[in-house]
Amino acid sequence: MARVGIIGIGHGVFGRRSDATVQELAFEAFRAAMEDAGIEKDDLDASVIGSVPEYHKQRSLPGVVQEYLGLVPKPTWLTEVACASGSAAIRTAWMSIKAGIHDIVAVIGCQKMTELTTPEILALMGRVGEVQWESVFGTTFPAYYAMFARRHMHEFGTTHDQMLQVAIKNHFYGAKNSCALFQKEITMEKALESEEVATPFHVYDCCANADGAACVILAKEDRAKKISKKPVWLDGMGCATASMSVLRRPNLVGLPSAEEAARVAYEMAGVGPKDIKVAQVHDCFTIAEIMAYEDLGFCKKGEGGKLIEERQTYIEGKIPVNVDGGLKAKGHPIGATGVSLTYEITKQLRGEAGERQVKGADIGLTHNVGGIGQYCFVQVLRRS
Amino acid sequence: MARVGIIGIGHGVFGRRSDATVQELAFEAFRAAMEDAGIEKDDLDASVIGSVPEYHKQRSLPGVVQEYLGLVPKPTWLTEVACASGSAAIRTAWMSIKAGIHDIVAVIGCQKMTELTTPEILALMGRVGEVQWESVFGTTFPAYYAMFARRHMHEFGTTHDQMLQVAIKNHFYGAKNSCALFQKEITMEKALESEEVATPFHVYDCCANADGAACVILAKEDRAKKISKKPVWLDGMGCATASMSVLRRPNLVGLPSAEEAARVAYEMAGVGPKDIKVAQVHDCFTIAEIMAYEDLGFCKKGEGGKLIEERQTYIEGKIPVNVDGGLKAKGHPIGATGVSLTYEITKQLRGEAGERQVKGADIGLTHNVGGIGQYCFVQVLRRS
Repeated sequence: MARVGIIGIGHGVFGRRSDATVQELAFEAFRAAMEDAGIEKDDLDASVIGSVPEYHKQRSLPGVVQEYLGLVPKPTWLTEVACASGSAAIRTAWMSIKAGIHDIVAVIGCQKMTELTTPEILALMGRVGEVQWESVFGTTFPAYYAMFARRHMHEFGTTHDQMLQVAIKNHFYGAKNSCALFQKEITMEKALESEEVATPFHVYDCCANADGAACVILAKEDRAKKISKKPVWLDGMGCATASMSVLRRPNLVGLPSAEEAARVAYEMAGVGPKDIKVAQVHDCFTIAEIMAYEDLGFCKKGEGGKLIEERQTYIEGKIPVNVDGGLKAKGHPIGATGVSLTYEITKQLRGEAGERQVKGADIGLTHNVGGIGQYCFVQVLRRS
Repeated sequence: MARVGIIGIGHGVFGRRSDATVQELAFEAFRAAMEDAGIEKDDLDASVIGSVPEYHKQRSLPGVVQEYLGLVPKPTWLTEVACASGSAAIRTAWMSIKAGIHDIVAVIGCQKMTELTTPEILALMGRVGEVQWESVFGTTFPAYYAMFARRHMHEFGTTHDQMLQVAIKNHFYGAKNSCALFQKEITMEKALESEEVATPFHVYDCCANADGAACVILAKEDRAKKISKKPVWLDGMGCATASMSVLRRPNLVGLPSAEEAARVAYEMAGVGPKDIKVAQVHDCFTIAEIMAYEDLGFCKKGEGGKLIEERQTYIEGKIPVNVDGGLKAKGHPIGATGVSLTYEITKQLRGEAGERQVKGADIGLTHNVGGIGQYCFVQVLRRS
């Protein structure tokens, strides 16, 4: 069956974007991706929106975005799986092309998080955990991930210092990314001085909400080869779930959904963890990146702390991870994040990542987690 | 390319379901569909949820539903396009099978509308219109559709009496549907006595919010033929958009998205309006059903009022429409509605609709509208 290629990518600036509505953010990324692809609106067959609707005053975004981008009467739809919504959007667009009903599809991840007050956002986010049995006990997102962190420390001797090394790395690269919310480096001293959020996490262990958008344009193989000089192929598309209730998980030191999604994606692409030259993972909290190293097979279970301590996930290391700053420094506009991950790997595989370029990057991976791991999407991408 | 067949269907009772959480509603429909298909959970490859998240205390439904149905670690995702969310879910599930990544997929439309207060629901629904420029002028859903109704009356001489004939028909059939919210017939006198909502609409011109769920199980052709004695084939899958802002529409007497989605679906299935033996359309307001007759080609533009007046959309008529009660009598649990439409047509094509059976029904159609017509999904279904 024909492959699906990425022929255009666009990325807006993440941050407090009071200058733009959500459809304007979508347009910013969409226009960049269309210019990058060198195609016209008439070439598109459909759009897919990755977003979590309830953070916006305007609901049901596909309609308003479709009109603003001038894509009426073409089809559109939105996918939602919490923070993995953008990756789910890419997966359904990919399916629509594989299915033979669309040839070229724009996927737009877009999200405004700053139209609501902080208490409103906290209330909404808490409801993405299990509401009936768990969130009554105060399991906010930092609390859930802090439990993972504590258990990882207990079982493997992982240290909070190692976790903050993840933050330091990601801020180091965020400082070199003009789309990032935080474009400055941090030190261990500064990270430790920051307020404690949920033991062991300080503020610098946590990513920040942001407004933003990113866009990728997918095309079926023959069209992609004609349109693009450097198509990047979506060869592995893993998607898996874990129980929403953490009480029903086999353990708290990793995400079973990530292991399963990675297994599927590697198998589809015919590669293994050792073949991956650069990866973008969902570092909503520092421990999440360490668990991702392990769940994706970049190191053995329990050795993720050591991997970052040895700087193996820097550009010069064994497996560079989040060398665009990650969610940690870029910010996390939830619906846009999945598309941003794919944007960055495409840049890397095209050799266009500038001072953040990983040399010889021919195969890359994205890993995107929804909620507290009830969803995980893993993509394996390959350059021509 | 292989066809996609419906091998199992299930439908819960629509209404004020304070007896069940949203995942329990989902289970009710899912269990019925699995028993109908005669398969086991292990036979399923994935699930897709059609729902509008923000009406629930529990957000990000796929995770909690997937766990409750015992489908972890299989993939899941949610689609949202307002009231058409269930039809979008079916379309993405259909694509996943056509794409060759899944063989058998459960699609569950599920929605609780009664966890919120009426003012909260009104505020949410208003935001599905165009928030920046239109809803500031008070364009709630009844107001939008009342504009369509007034314009239809002005241009074509359609009468409010004709609109209420739609309500009378749908309540007539709703009285014969054990899953319907309103299982009793109404008279013209009763309808006219009801409170005025937005001229010309009275209460009986409007469908009612409800809780509920429906499920259909899709399979690729070879599997469908092995599993089911009476597979029903999804042969035409149209999806189209119109501008969200009604000010930018070419006219207010129909939905351009519906005309386009119908065109695509008919073309894919190789049929025309005259081939359709039974249809389910989105009658959120009485005028919506009349516009659907015209947009789908069941009569000429402007003649929809006459079509119902002549009782041509009753079972004995030229083209039976909504002979399960429609949204009007069944109630409208927004995410579930699209799946409910497909459920009913499948019943009809299998010849299992009992006293509501349309004789000789071999080809059927569903028409589902999102928002105020910014989205429309049309399916053409065929029995073996």
